[in-house]
Amino acid sequence: MADEAPFQFLHNEVIQYIYKSADSGETENGRNISRLENMGFRVGQGLIERLTKDTARFKDELDIMKFICKDFWTCVFKKQIDNLRTNHQGIYVLQDNKFRLLGQLSAGKQYLEQAPKYLAFTCGLVRGALSNLGVKSIVTAEVAIMPACKFQVMIQKI
Amino acid sequence: MADEAPFQFLHNEVIQYIYKSADSGETENGRNISRLENMGFRVGQGLIERLTKDTARFKDELDIMKFICKDFWTCVFKKQIDNLRTNHQGIYVLQDNKFRLLGQLSAGKQYLEQAPKYLAFTCGLVRGALSNLGVKSIVTAEVAIMPACKFQVMIQKI
Repeated sequence: MADEAPFQFLHNEVIQYIYKSADSGETENGRNISRLENMGFRVGQGLIERLTKDTARFKDELDIMKFICKDFWTCVFKKQIDNLRTNHQGIYVLQDNKFRLLGQLSAGKQYLEQAPKYLAFTCGLVRGALSNLGVKSIVTAEVAIMPACKFQVMIQKI
Repeated sequence: MADEAPFQFLHNEVIQYIYKSADSGETENGRNISRLENMGFRVGQGLIERLTKDTARFKDELDIMKFICKDFWTCVFKKQIDNLRTNHQGIYVLQDNKFRLLGQLSAGKQYLEQAPKYLAFTCGLVRGALSNLGVKSIVTAEVAIMPACKFQVMIQKI
């Protein structure tokens, strides 16, 4: 129950810290968002390295995405992604119907504008994990109704 | 195995972030340490609230300390404190023989001077938890040989 709590509370504090400590001169939201995203990126890199230590080689991109949705997500959020869709052309949509890091915001639409700062870290997390598996991507997130959330992964072909 | 990893990796990133983002004018170590300590304090407050939601009232101070050593520690670090000592006059020493947040530093003495920044968050964590249970304290940490670590809790009588 409280297993994922230390991570969640720390994640919240990081958001508060970054938003509070921003100098008055640079309070634009974008900069804080990308700080959170960068932090997520490095955490994702570290985590995937540990998680795939004893894993067999991945067959293909889809195989990698399945690992992210299942093992990686469970490690961080204690549940799997509820739905994975792809257009088979490098776009993947990962839907989490009860995304933990939004769990503390009231359900519904009244805090929608607060959502991006609670999603940035996780976008970076996915991008960092993929990057360490050799997949370059752009990851964005979208909330329709809390606490459901969709992450869109666009693979960058090199 | 990798259960505690998201928290650990995020904790590391927070240290890096705080140390990197400190303006050149205020790079004194003390300020960063107290930032980490404050962050730990708030995480500790939140966590203990969740953990004690359905717990019976504590008998006394020692009962509280035992809860911290057992339930609280297990929630955050996936193991209990190995040894709890007290002088029965408001000083408690909590010893963790394999403290997780030092786990990534090489064992031995060569990184001893790096230790304080890896301990500050946890000192705050304990202080925050105790504070929410109505116990005011000063918490310090000491490392003799990595990754063993002792936290000293001095209860402040009011």
